[in-house]
Amino acid sequence: MMRPKIAFAMAADKTKYVFDAAALAQLAAHCEIVQEAPLDSFSDPQARAVLAEIDILVTGWGCPRISAEVVKAAPRLKLIAHAAGTVKYMLDPAVYAAGIAVTHAADANAVPVAEYTLAAIIFANKRMFEMRDRYRADPARVSSYALTNEPIGNYHRTVGLVGASRIGRKVAKFLQGFDFTVLLSDPYVQAGDPILAQVELVDIDTVMARSDVVSMHAPSLPTTRAMIGARELGLMRDGATFINTARGALVDEAALIAELQSGRIHAVIDVTEPEIPEVGSPLYSLPNVFLTPHVAGAIGTERLRLGQLVVEEIERFIAGVPLEFAVEPALLERLA
Amino acid sequence: MMRPKIAFAMAADKTKYVFDAAALAQLAAHCEIVQEAPLDSFSDPQARAVLAEIDILVTGWGCPRISAEVVKAAPRLKLIAHAAGTVKYMLDPAVYAAGIAVTHAADANAVPVAEYTLAAIIFANKRMFEMRDRYRADPARVSSYALTNEPIGNYHRTVGLVGASRIGRKVAKFLQGFDFTVLLSDPYVQAGDPILAQVELVDIDTVMARSDVVSMHAPSLPTTRAMIGARELGLMRDGATFINTARGALVDEAALIAELQSGRIHAVIDVTEPEIPEVGSPLYSLPNVFLTPHVAGAIGTERLRLGQLVVEEIERFIAGVPLEFAVEPALLERLA
Repeated sequence: MMRPKIAFAMAADKTKYVFDAAALAQLAAHCEIVQEAPLDSFSDPQARAVLAEIDILVTGWGCPRISAEVVKAAPRLKLIAHAAGTVKYMLDPAVYAAGIAVTHAADANAVPVAEYTLAAIIFANKRMFEMRDRYRADPARVSSYALTNEPIGNYHRTVGLVGASRIGRKVAKFLQGFDFTVLLSDPYVQAGDPILAQVELVDIDTVMARSDVVSMHAPSLPTTRAMIGARELGLMRDGATFINTARGALVDEAALIAELQSGRIHAVIDVTEPEIPEVGSPLYSLPNVFLTPHVAGAIGTERLRLGQLVVEEIERFIAGVPLEFAVEPALLERLA
Repeated sequence: MMRPKIAFAMAADKTKYVFDAAALAQLAAHCEIVQEAPLDSFSDPQARAVLAEIDILVTGWGCPRISAEVVKAAPRLKLIAHAAGTVKYMLDPAVYAAGIAVTHAADANAVPVAEYTLAAIIFANKRMFEMRDRYRADPARVSSYALTNEPIGNYHRTVGLVGASRIGRKVAKFLQGFDFTVLLSDPYVQAGDPILAQVELVDIDTVMARSDVVSMHAPSLPTTRAMIGARELGLMRDGATFINTARGALVDEAALIAELQSGRIHAVIDVTEPEIPEVGSPLYSLPNVFLTPHVAGAIGTERLRLGQLVVEEIERFIAGVPLEFAVEPALLERLA
């Protein structure tokens, strides 16, 4: 493909964090950037004019839905490169029907989530959040230091992963460098999957019962809704930690709060349902909860990793090399 | 050496956390354990009787000083295996003069410190401690979410290590798995040192000025006392994080507090001088400080790693295999 034409469709205030000058220059070396300012709508005549001539559309956070009508308005379009994680709700089936290739940056968004999870596991096993809070409240450090004689720490302990997703796999790989037993539950993992060299495949109840830390990496689907309820939480060991960086909908939140209020388990929670817990939710104030505002994924400079991945995918596409992160329509139902 | 005789000298309430039943059984397979209860003094007649017959002494936290007189009382002693990190203040030079081999578990204690540091780097770069505290105070999450547009995160950022100690080297190795530039300052690193494949060797001022996170891994020596003062802290970038898991004495604490009170930098601090800051110290309450009570090292189950290392060293010694962690008297001055 000779110097294809390219445009962007995403929220304007996000683009600058995903594509810096270096990334745009790298694109411009191979493509004609029809318009650097991203489209935030596909319906006005100016947007239609852009759609009519582009070969590649870079999408991202805040991109309007790509309907059958948009596909019709873009007869030359051969590639949609989504510079964010979740692409499935954005694309009408007409995109795939028209033979437009789709790639996405979920892999680049998975990196910071896996890194956050690794840090959360290490700190949770050592009970550092609690140490810090107790030390603040009790400078004599009697209450914090007492914890050091409990069976805490990162030696010979068990980490349980729920879901061999892109993120779950990155976490499993990270954990190879530590003295953990790693359990995994995932109904789709088959014999011969390379992750089986890194984890012990067990059922969900075994993950809940044997792990010192349970970390959620399953997709949010109708079938996974509230997959972790009072029964599953009740299986967790005393003093264990529940980490959720996936989606709030995976968990029966009332049951989680009840278990946390008992003080029996701990939690590191980056996602909730609703996305921001109600004012007064115990998740804000419980001493055994480390709650963060849905920031495990790409924030700050980490968003540039999404842009970099997309630029490299576009370079492959232009060079006729297979995409590394092509979206397979058949697998969409299992994607987050 | 046929079934050598062995005894312990350390605080009795610590031994059980370092040597569990499995470790004691492993020792008993090769040695005659003269007395499982550890000696907490070397001066009483019963202790003298034990010293007179042992070949190996396992020491640990709370072991009394091994004086020239103790060496004289233990004519068969061939190995002191210290199940903790810092051995140098415990041993009279007479130990080395008598040809007694010394080994220690500093390497096993370095593991949890390096793990803590890794988690602290990941969370500090993402500003997770601050996110959590802001989210608690402001459930609308305006103040926490605003941080996501600052140049934070773990992509293309710079981590500076001060000291290629045992711990500093483990941290450098961990950091290879992430998208960091890693700087190191250490006056003893020579050409050909394998760490040079993992870091860029620079001077201390460059570490302070270029790093998004500076992490201390230098030994506490007269020459390193307050090596980080107002001038060095003033070189740090706005928004950077200072991590100290080494020793409080490395830092001019008043200067650190002043810099933190300005709000310009952040800190994760596990060690202070004095060991417990005075009641009312700003280190307890500053929002940009994550203070923990000297727990980065082995706590909880992590103490069993010290015992396991010592058991394996003793097995090597008995088998006539070189010790992996022998203490070289000539290098003692540079050890922590």
